[in-house]
Amino acid sequence: MRKGIKDRGLQYALFEGYRGRLVKGLFPVAAVFIKIPFDRIDVNVHPAKTEVRFADQRRVYQCMKTTVASALAAAQTPPWEKDSPSRSETIQAPGPLRSPSIVSEPVSRYMQSIETLLPGTEAPAPAQETGNISPALSPGQTDTVPKHGFTGLQVIGQLFNTYIVCQAENRLVLVDQHAAHERILFEALKQARENRGASQGLLVPETIDLTHSAAAALEPMLEDLGALGLEIEPFGKNAFVVKAVPPLLSDADVSAMVQEIAEKLADTGFSPGIDTIMDDVLHVMACHGAIRAHQRLSVREMEELLARLDLCENPMHCPHGRPTSISWSTQEIEKLFKRIV
Amino acid sequence: MRKGIKDRGLQYALFEGYRGRLVKGLFPVAAVFIKIPFDRIDVNVHPAKTEVRFADQRRVYQCMKTTVASALAAAQTPPWEKDSPSRSETIQAPGPLRSPSIVSEPVSRYMQSIETLLPGTEAPAPAQETGNISPALSPGQTDTVPKHGFTGLQVIGQLFNTYIVCQAENRLVLVDQHAAHERILFEALKQARENRGASQGLLVPETIDLTHSAAAALEPMLEDLGALGLEIEPFGKNAFVVKAVPPLLSDADVSAMVQEIAEKLADTGFSPGIDTIMDDVLHVMACHGAIRAHQRLSVREMEELLARLDLCENPMHCPHGRPTSISWSTQEIEKLFKRIV
Repeated sequence: MRKGIKDRGLQYALFEGYRGRLVKGLFPVAAVFIKIPFDRIDVNVHPAKTEVRFADQRRVYQCMKTTVASALAAAQTPPWEKDSPSRSETIQAPGPLRSPSIVSEPVSRYMQSIETLLPGTEAPAPAQETGNISPALSPGQTDTVPKHGFTGLQVIGQLFNTYIVCQAENRLVLVDQHAAHERILFEALKQARENRGASQGLLVPETIDLTHSAAAALEPMLEDLGALGLEIEPFGKNAFVVKAVPPLLSDADVSAMVQEIAEKLADTGFSPGIDTIMDDVLHVMACHGAIRAHQRLSVREMEELLARLDLCENPMHCPHGRPTSISWSTQEIEKLFKRIV
Repeated sequence: MRKGIKDRGLQYALFEGYRGRLVKGLFPVAAVFIKIPFDRIDVNVHPAKTEVRFADQRRVYQCMKTTVASALAAAQTPPWEKDSPSRSETIQAPGPLRSPSIVSEPVSRYMQSIETLLPGTEAPAPAQETGNISPALSPGQTDTVPKHGFTGLQVIGQLFNTYIVCQAENRLVLVDQHAAHERILFEALKQARENRGASQGLLVPETIDLTHSAAAALEPMLEDLGALGLEIEPFGKNAFVVKAVPPLLSDADVSAMVQEIAEKLADTGFSPGIDTIMDDVLHVMACHGAIRAHQRLSVREMEELLARLDLCENPMHCPHGRPTSISWSTQEIEKLFKRIV
């Protein structure tokens, strides 16, 4: 029997699955079918049966989150790769993605995914909760390098010193150099955090003065920031001294960055959990470390950027969920030129 | 008093004014106000007064045609020139042209033009019928070179070996290399015709065999084609020998070109008048002489093409009415990247 239910936990898990793929203010829409053994669920919590209680709530939410995240990761082939007939047919969207932040895959794929992942069904290989991705979920994500086709792009030049103009086989592609580099740095910094990343001492430590609320928010986080390679020490009252930064950020304006981190921490508060907070901090760090718009790049630098973007886990979006690339098909261009109707 | 009338002659004159700016199958829409002295018009030819007779019909039609053509010529500033605040404010469209073949100027401009041009009104300088353009009609068309801003474009590179990717101050611009070169050749060939253009003897004259109908259509036009620099002589039965071509077409496939001209002549018949027929012939010649799509160009060649396009009278359209360029504003690109909402 299939029945719609309301569950804020599932909603939150869905949102978490979309993390880093939606610009602030956008919300995911999904039809999710959940198959679950009858003895793992209590349906008698609400007279209208619109609410249920899961025996293993955390596991269901975790499953929802990782399944959505994995499905989105598998679906994020760029449109020029989808056009190409040489691409494996296991990854095929119904059409090129118009709006890169919204994945228009057939619902059936997700349905299958969820059903496969949930325990107690006839799934051949129940997924681990540790975040391992079931092989069935990522058909195109084999060991082939490059993963996403950004390296296959041919660089034509730089537009407004801001976008990298490229051509794919059948598409004109613009890559936002700042968004792309932000994504690269974000994933590198995250990786460094997991490996308890290195840090690089500043030649001249920088002293910064904060507002009272920013200082109060920063103080208890100093150890966690240290784990990211950002070594900050209290310097009396609302002042702090920055002694070391992750090597990736050696070119950033350290003072402005720490200021923004402290303000972000003051805004956020502690409720969302340490991982979410640290993600926000990494966003700020990536943004400050990334090459800016209006910065001249050589062709070699642009190719290097594309190659590094290609190695990212989620190369299609910057950490704030904005697209890193937009593109037009040859057909769209020919229509604008009235070569075809 | 203003009253709508039906007049096929005026409709045809409107169409003629749009010549070379509309792709086949598209029709111009216009609201035209005609001020004319009462004694130069007979309104009593139709009970419902929906038809009138003009005392000087030819002059009214000619006026309509040249006024529309001049207004369109004056309005064909490319969108990136319109964006620029440094540009004189006399040429200002209500917004960037979405579809480059349709001019979205306020009606008031045209209205004023027509009123100014028609004789017997309070116009300060009645226009000549010889095609001279009243100064009031071309406010931006001063002696400044370049005329249209194509030379101001910065070449980024070539896309699909087919489009020239450029940046204007506030726009990404694609120029169709074939359409642009067609326009350049078309106007150069037309100019050559007016000056009884030079021709260049072929090292080896080319013999071509035509179908009976194509040969029959070509034969009586040989003298006119000679005036274009295309020297062809009958060679018995349906065969002809091409002895010389305009210097501009020295690289063209002469045999295929003459074949297509003959077929075009056979299709057209003689009704549209010699000027229209010769325009069609020039279209074919320009098309055969122009660089093709999928042809690699150097940056210097692309810049040269843009500079020559800039000197054309109607650089915004190829001779068949297709746009020579399309473009996106920085705002449009930033919206696609979700940098702005």
